[in-house]
Amino acid sequence: MTSPLATFPRIARRRDGIREEPRTLPEEAAVAFSYGGTTHAVMMATPADLEDFALGFSLTEGIIASPDEIETIDVQDLGVGFDVQIRLKDAANHRFEARRRRLAGPVGCGLCGIESIEEAMRSVPSVPGTDVRLAHDQVVAAVRFLSERQVLHKATGAVHAAGLYMPGEGVVAAREDVGRHNALDKLAGALARMNVAAGTGAVVITSRVSVEMVQKSAAIGAPVVIAVSAPTALAVRTAETAGITLVALVRGEEYDVFTHSERIGVSDHVSS
Amino acid sequence: MTSPLATFPRIARRRDGIREEPRTLPEEAAVAFSYGGTTHAVMMATPADLEDFALGFSLTEGIIASPDEIETIDVQDLGVGFDVQIRLKDAANHRFEARRRRLAGPVGCGLCGIESIEEAMRSVPSVPGTDVRLAHDQVVAAVRFLSERQVLHKATGAVHAAGLYMPGEGVVAAREDVGRHNALDKLAGALARMNVAAGTGAVVITSRVSVEMVQKSAAIGAPVVIAVSAPTALAVRTAETAGITLVALVRGEEYDVFTHSERIGVSDHVSS
Repeated sequence: MTSPLATFPRIARRRDGIREEPRTLPEEAAVAFSYGGTTHAVMMATPADLEDFALGFSLTEGIIASPDEIETIDVQDLGVGFDVQIRLKDAANHRFEARRRRLAGPVGCGLCGIESIEEAMRSVPSVPGTDVRLAHDQVVAAVRFLSERQVLHKATGAVHAAGLYMPGEGVVAAREDVGRHNALDKLAGALARMNVAAGTGAVVITSRVSVEMVQKSAAIGAPVVIAVSAPTALAVRTAETAGITLVALVRGEEYDVFTHSERIGVSDHVSS
Repeated sequence: MTSPLATFPRIARRRDGIREEPRTLPEEAAVAFSYGGTTHAVMMATPADLEDFALGFSLTEGIIASPDEIETIDVQDLGVGFDVQIRLKDAANHRFEARRRRLAGPVGCGLCGIESIEEAMRSVPSVPGTDVRLAHDQVVAAVRFLSERQVLHKATGAVHAAGLYMPGEGVVAAREDVGRHNALDKLAGALARMNVAAGTGAVVITSRVSVEMVQKSAAIGAPVVIAVSAPTALAVRTAETAGITLVALVRGEEYDVFTHSERIGVSDHVSS
């Protein structure tokens, strides 16, 4: 399972007839992340950039505070899926074990839902007040530049992407995955390995914006999130609280700015 | 948090100008499912139809084999999210506890990823060989009927739906959610409560088709899945194995049939 793409026969019903012709689809594989030998999460993901994925997931989920807290990442293709063993350095490992113990117990108290909900709704760090400012043309260009990097999506029409747009530089890194959270995690890992900070750019995503997309963007210090599709109500509230500028529903030249519009050029020109 | 919708101000950048006007967005809330007092999963979901969600999730994840294995479902709005306590009858509870113990251990062996991957890649039941057969017009109608039931999507443009289409009857049940898996789980629960079997109809979904969508459809015995967007490679392989007819990429009158095309009227008219 080395290629992220596969081709299948299918019957295509078109206006002008019915024919059998192949179609390329994205692969999807189970990827298990283990820390210190214990499985923490299993995701269905595109089998590509798995080291980036592991590093980025560790960062955006707050398991590590910086890349140098990871000792090793070992990716094994088991055929049925990928086993990713992550070894943390001592301090990070102690922190992680304490968090795991807290979440694991007490078992059977009848109230555990509350802790799990609070973990899911964890407060996000405010992004530092940077002076990033995007002109109208740059918002539009960010999405266009990302689309040029969507190699798997071009082949399949069915893969999400996340990229970092830097004003004046274009999209400096991009990653793709069948899952939107995975694409963003892979981007976070790629940026960490490139030693590029998200603080002076904009995270650009092709998907809708769930609260987790905002949480993960906040975790890597991104002050601006630009999305092709719509946000949820909770994503808007979380972006507002975290000081993140949320631009969404970008269609060609048109888009909506939901929060912290002071970073976007349009904010001076609003008429009611 | 009783409404699944919320309205926010936003700056709308349009070709003909920039203005501030409200936009309606879907809510997203943490929903924790606990069995026998222990939290099993937390999902970010649309806060509606949570009893259907709990019942459907229990069915499609194989925690119960039939609805009567559930003693009670208790939904509590905690403000920060929803705590759903599910009490299983004795036999189902023993089975579930055994499965949980198997998945939880042995801890720290360095190989646990394998079990988690195998759980994610669990083999799906073959759907019984029913004589469901859909004409071309019925495939097209199934998606159109579902769209008429997408109340939340009409208001927001950002919510997935899952419905059951019955030839001759239309879409007999439909549920919506910001998450596509949740929408399908809610449908499964709704069907169980209505005592409607999926075996003579088609599951219709507005989303892409990940392997989990096929696994869940197989779990409720649906012989046909019709999706608006593309499947993953693994979803196609799994549908093939499970005996499920997978129709995808339905756009108006056009669509693709990936597996078991004998149930679709087009299969007699293929030219190469």
